[in-house]
Amino acid sequence: MARLGGFQGGRTRCLENPPADTSTFRADGDNENSRIVQAFFSQELCGLPQLRQDLITGRWVAVATERARRPDSFTQAAKESVAARDVCPFCPGHETMTPPEVLAYRAAGTAPNTPGWWVRVVPNLYAAFRLEPDGQEHQDGRFWQRDAIGACEVLISSPDHRATTPLLPRRQVEEIVQSYVDRYRQHAQNPALEHVLVLYNHGRPAGASLEHPHSQLYAVSLIPPSFLDELAGARRFHEADGECVFCRTLEDERQAGARVIFENEAFTVFAPYAARTPFETWIMPRRHCASFGDLEANEKPAFAEALQLTLKGFYEGLNDPPFNYYIHSAPLKADVSNLYHWHLELIPKLSTAAGFELGTGIWINVVKPEDSAAFLRERIQKEAAQMA
Amino acid sequence: MARLGGFQGGRTRCLENPPADTSTFRADGDNENSRIVQAFFSQELCGLPQLRQDLITGRWVAVATERARRPDSFTQAAKESVAARDVCPFCPGHETMTPPEVLAYRAAGTAPNTPGWWVRVVPNLYAAFRLEPDGQEHQDGRFWQRDAIGACEVLISSPDHRATTPLLPRRQVEEIVQSYVDRYRQHAQNPALEHVLVLYNHGRPAGASLEHPHSQLYAVSLIPPSFLDELAGARRFHEADGECVFCRTLEDERQAGARVIFENEAFTVFAPYAARTPFETWIMPRRHCASFGDLEANEKPAFAEALQLTLKGFYEGLNDPPFNYYIHSAPLKADVSNLYHWHLELIPKLSTAAGFELGTGIWINVVKPEDSAAFLRERIQKEAAQMA
Repeated sequence: MARLGGFQGGRTRCLENPPADTSTFRADGDNENSRIVQAFFSQELCGLPQLRQDLITGRWVAVATERARRPDSFTQAAKESVAARDVCPFCPGHETMTPPEVLAYRAAGTAPNTPGWWVRVVPNLYAAFRLEPDGQEHQDGRFWQRDAIGACEVLISSPDHRATTPLLPRRQVEEIVQSYVDRYRQHAQNPALEHVLVLYNHGRPAGASLEHPHSQLYAVSLIPPSFLDELAGARRFHEADGECVFCRTLEDERQAGARVIFENEAFTVFAPYAARTPFETWIMPRRHCASFGDLEANEKPAFAEALQLTLKGFYEGLNDPPFNYYIHSAPLKADVSNLYHWHLELIPKLSTAAGFELGTGIWINVVKPEDSAAFLRERIQKEAAQMA
Repeated sequence: MARLGGFQGGRTRCLENPPADTSTFRADGDNENSRIVQAFFSQELCGLPQLRQDLITGRWVAVATERARRPDSFTQAAKESVAARDVCPFCPGHETMTPPEVLAYRAAGTAPNTPGWWVRVVPNLYAAFRLEPDGQEHQDGRFWQRDAIGACEVLISSPDHRATTPLLPRRQVEEIVQSYVDRYRQHAQNPALEHVLVLYNHGRPAGASLEHPHSQLYAVSLIPPSFLDELAGARRFHEADGECVFCRTLEDERQAGARVIFENEAFTVFAPYAARTPFETWIMPRRHCASFGDLEANEKPAFAEALQLTLKGFYEGLNDPPFNYYIHSAPLKADVSNLYHWHLELIPKLSTAAGFELGTGIWINVVKPEDSAAFLRERIQKEAAQMA
């Protein structure tokens, strides 16, 4: 009992008792990193938990930092990596193990579906959406369903089975970004499709099932609910204030400064004010632009830099945590060029969405975004200095 | 390569290749259970993935069953249990390790915060919401936050550190239900509060951090977004069709039959048509009633039976998987008694919400709810027969 600390009565806070909580902070750190992170956050004062609302979506978040204050906060999680397989279908020489490639950047003179590529894109064998000529609807009283029309693709980052984005040459990261743009533009021409999402799952806790680094693309025949929420908020703001809510947020964040992590000539990396999880991070172009498909050639190196430095900050600072990122871009056919503003959202899997989050739609975040931003800012400044 | 199976070209489906997918099916089963489950689902035919929309919330789900068809679908996940601690603050004799109890069912003559209880409710030490006399708002330009006013409580299931709900005597489950009702009614009287959610997290992957079985209660000062969505849908349906959308769904499900898992005199247990995850299960009272606080004394044994048999079906049939359940009840002050209909939603943690789910708000479910219902129905019929 002494070991855990007894309850002191009254309204004492910040006890280091084991909690029975909802959102459990997990940093897959070794002890050294854990000490660094813990020392960093110990400077923070205790306070009443706060409700914050995202200006764009109206999403609610409870920022309750005491939950992260217990001794085992940063060390409890065991590392759960993606199982290595005897034969990797994404490695060079195994091209016949995947469906035929739909795009590859490869050495002159090499044949499709043979080695010689440095980025390779193939259809996802386990597609949740399929391109079929005629989508059908099926009605049974009020039970209604329709064929899930769309395309699912895998974008293999490089021939190297082990090299995640932080470890690749910058030039290769630019090639990955180029493959995103090329496939985005390809699907944007298909009149059957409404939306294209490019994403990356890293680590088994974040849903990755193959180790070889790869991004994914989902091109679907409906406007996903997340975008309906964003667009409703963006439209509301535009009608009231006459400007793009994303541009406004960028400007507000740059003036406030506390949540800005990194900037280069074209992109700002910041922790959103109503961050859903510890270390949630957004990468946003400062040029107002609704569609990721309109990324300009001269913006590509800056985007690759912002993306790689951010991922390197996570890799070094948080000991390669699992994460998901996705690129939010305007629906293909909606007339929202003045309202929407494409950006990337990165959500590390350092906490578990449990009964409260599932039951209410409110997220509980145990780390203030101001603190996660300061931590990552310091890390990334070091990385950028080393790389320069 | 032979081991994994090569790609056959064309539109061949149902290959057992390792996927690069988003939603990874995980059943924490041993090999025996895995074989049973896998044999069960192998009977199902392949088909185009389907989009389904929830009638109540408008939520979209892609039902894509091929993803579950790979060999390691049901065996890949290691069991990750909640770490045992030297001293459990929820065990009898350790009552001083928690804040003072706010409710206990205990033997006559025993003092508060001493042994002798069979259900005990205490404030959550790591509360994300707090009851403070005056909630404050804090404004900094467009960055706005307010104190997270509310109450977080832990409802300890029984004195037994190991006895989860399926293993308890039925009478004890009824006492747990009674503690839900008592605390719900207590908070419902507080004019500062808008909503009360009772929930249960089981297993570390579902967010539980203490092993001793316990439920939780969150009483909060806002109407959570999930309820705004449900109420909007319920209101739309009521205006168009003049009836409660939950009553209608119950009737439709009972007529269809394929997703019904269990029924007793007062409750229906079923897999919702647009189930978000494998084995998502709802428990709904057939009597139209908006608030869980209005559970009648004669409904309590039936609710306890439905809850325990459902959890026993999961425990036996799926080898004690991690799960979350929560009770959805009407907001305290909204005039929705004709629209809303309380119910329990149970979501096993058998898959990982990854980049696609986070980025779009669309869930990918790799098991048809008709199949999960048939599997659980068979299990629960056996349990019910054994218990009768």
